[in-house]
Amino acid sequence: MNKPTILTGDRTTGPLHIGHYAGSLANRLRFQDSHEQFLLLADTQALTDNAHDPAKVQRNVVEVALDYLAVGIDPDRCTICVQSHLPALAELTMLYLNFVTVARLERNPTIKDEIRARGFGRDIPAGFLCYPAAQAADITAFKATIVPVGADQAPLIEQTNEIVRRINATAGHDVLPEAQAIIPKAGRLPGIDGKAKMSKSGGNAIPLSASPDEIRSAVRAMFTDPNHLRVEDPGRVEGNVVFTYLDAFDPDQDELAELKAQYKRGGLGDGKIKARLETILQNLIAPIRARRAAFSKDRAYVLKVIKDGTERARQRTEETKRDVVNGLGLFQL
Amino acid sequence: MNKPTILTGDRTTGPLHIGHYAGSLANRLRFQDSHEQFLLLADTQALTDNAHDPAKVQRNVVEVALDYLAVGIDPDRCTICVQSHLPALAELTMLYLNFVTVARLERNPTIKDEIRARGFGRDIPAGFLCYPAAQAADITAFKATIVPVGADQAPLIEQTNEIVRRINATAGHDVLPEAQAIIPKAGRLPGIDGKAKMSKSGGNAIPLSASPDEIRSAVRAMFTDPNHLRVEDPGRVEGNVVFTYLDAFDPDQDELAELKAQYKRGGLGDGKIKARLETILQNLIAPIRARRAAFSKDRAYVLKVIKDGTERARQRTEETKRDVVNGLGLFQL
Repeated sequence: MNKPTILTGDRTTGPLHIGHYAGSLANRLRFQDSHEQFLLLADTQALTDNAHDPAKVQRNVVEVALDYLAVGIDPDRCTICVQSHLPALAELTMLYLNFVTVARLERNPTIKDEIRARGFGRDIPAGFLCYPAAQAADITAFKATIVPVGADQAPLIEQTNEIVRRINATAGHDVLPEAQAIIPKAGRLPGIDGKAKMSKSGGNAIPLSASPDEIRSAVRAMFTDPNHLRVEDPGRVEGNVVFTYLDAFDPDQDELAELKAQYKRGGLGDGKIKARLETILQNLIAPIRARRAAFSKDRAYVLKVIKDGTERARQRTEETKRDVVNGLGLFQL
Repeated sequence: MNKPTILTGDRTTGPLHIGHYAGSLANRLRFQDSHEQFLLLADTQALTDNAHDPAKVQRNVVEVALDYLAVGIDPDRCTICVQSHLPALAELTMLYLNFVTVARLERNPTIKDEIRARGFGRDIPAGFLCYPAAQAADITAFKATIVPVGADQAPLIEQTNEIVRRINATAGHDVLPEAQAIIPKAGRLPGIDGKAKMSKSGGNAIPLSASPDEIRSAVRAMFTDPNHLRVEDPGRVEGNVVFTYLDAFDPDQDELAELKAQYKRGGLGDGKIKARLETILQNLIAPIRARRAAFSKDRAYVLKVIKDGTERARQRTEETKRDVVNGLGLFQL
């Protein structure tokens, strides 16, 4: 039971896609035995910028859980839990909000970027500005010491640790552990159109439930090198989505290195590399799709997985809340 | 069971004083039969500007409950409950924060004034900025339709109702009732030194547990009219703390009107009016002090009152949370 604890999860705003697979799901599978993992179905956080569409957030709780099971997350080894059903997270958030200033939240680079990306302007929902404190609550409530995040999210872990240090200083001893961000090598997978962000709403994602035809069309439509018109021309590998995806998914990276060299020299057509990628993605997704279809038919089982995991998570998070209440000497009945 | 519901309460930052009695406790006694009343021991809110001193906030939960019992609040007719032990309040706050913008919170006149009064400058704790959403959660969680507040707090009720309307609009039907502020005629009682705010930390308050000697010295030290040097001089009644207190506590308001007229004409000494006020305050506080001393010796009883009330409040607030979750169609296990 001395395995290090990882907190990770996904906002429940849509089914997951192969970008999630490369960026995080593959690592979660890898860590199933070596680490204690809590996977948070982050519906509360999803509402911070989707309060106008709660139905979407609600629907996707089960969709994301299905994706987890489909890729091979084992609910006996990982705890899959729903954020909105863990009251200690909200209670700790409320407490932590007193240990961080508005100015500090506004300075958070991740929040600044995301406010810009969402076009909130001055109309930032207060919940959105506060979400670093909520994330600190999530991380610390599980006493997670490892948090996998994208490079752009690293400032959030720093902010979590600031709150942890303030809580510990007020308590006079270490109530909560600091957490360490681990940033996956893969980086964020671009959309099939080459745009930085793959998203269902952007229409440039390949979902984990994609049909063989959808995979085929997506790879065919994929952005390569617009100046690579004839097979014999030299082509660019950087910014070429097919190669970026091959970097992420090709099991034979040596052969891939040779193909890249050939592509750069000239003499390798887009058709060839697309065919290679398509085969790899078909092989990757086929068993995921099959398992997803099977689990989809057994909604009761999926709900039981979520319920059992949430109950385990509830015990852990309530225990941490008691530790914080004790540590700070707050009122107890 | 069709009594209108009132939510009221006090931040647990210190024992209550006669300003609280005049401003709110007297009304609560008056409403014990005609209204359903929830009295919130607001320890979570107290932390929004006292996170550096959680021990103070903790200690005063029982002190404020003692004050309630001492003035005659009947725990069988009023529900005395602890804010930090009602998780639905934190959960609803998190949700409501998504229905209010940062700009709107910053524009709230009450928050603006209080930020200035506390000298926060740019270092406003995020929890403090967010407290109107927390207050909206408190009010709506009890489905209170009446909220007694000082005149300066009325904008908070308006903000609560804005959130209520947004929740109801998103749900497509009325999940939550709007609330009405009632502003006590009495207004806020000044400190004995004439300063606008009576507070224990300001050393200008008469606590509900004041000893006969403390009451005597407080009245002797009380600010009157600095230009009223000789008995025969005309004196000012406005801004004269003794008369302000007599306005609030004198059971014979007709006689008081005559005394005021005499004071203004000249011929009434400060000693006389101070003696009158002292008698009134000694009579008011003596039974409160005696009951407070008795309840203080039975801490187990006080804790039971808090525990039972908090359990009743928990049922009510969890029910409202379910209504909101159902209304918005959020995920349910």
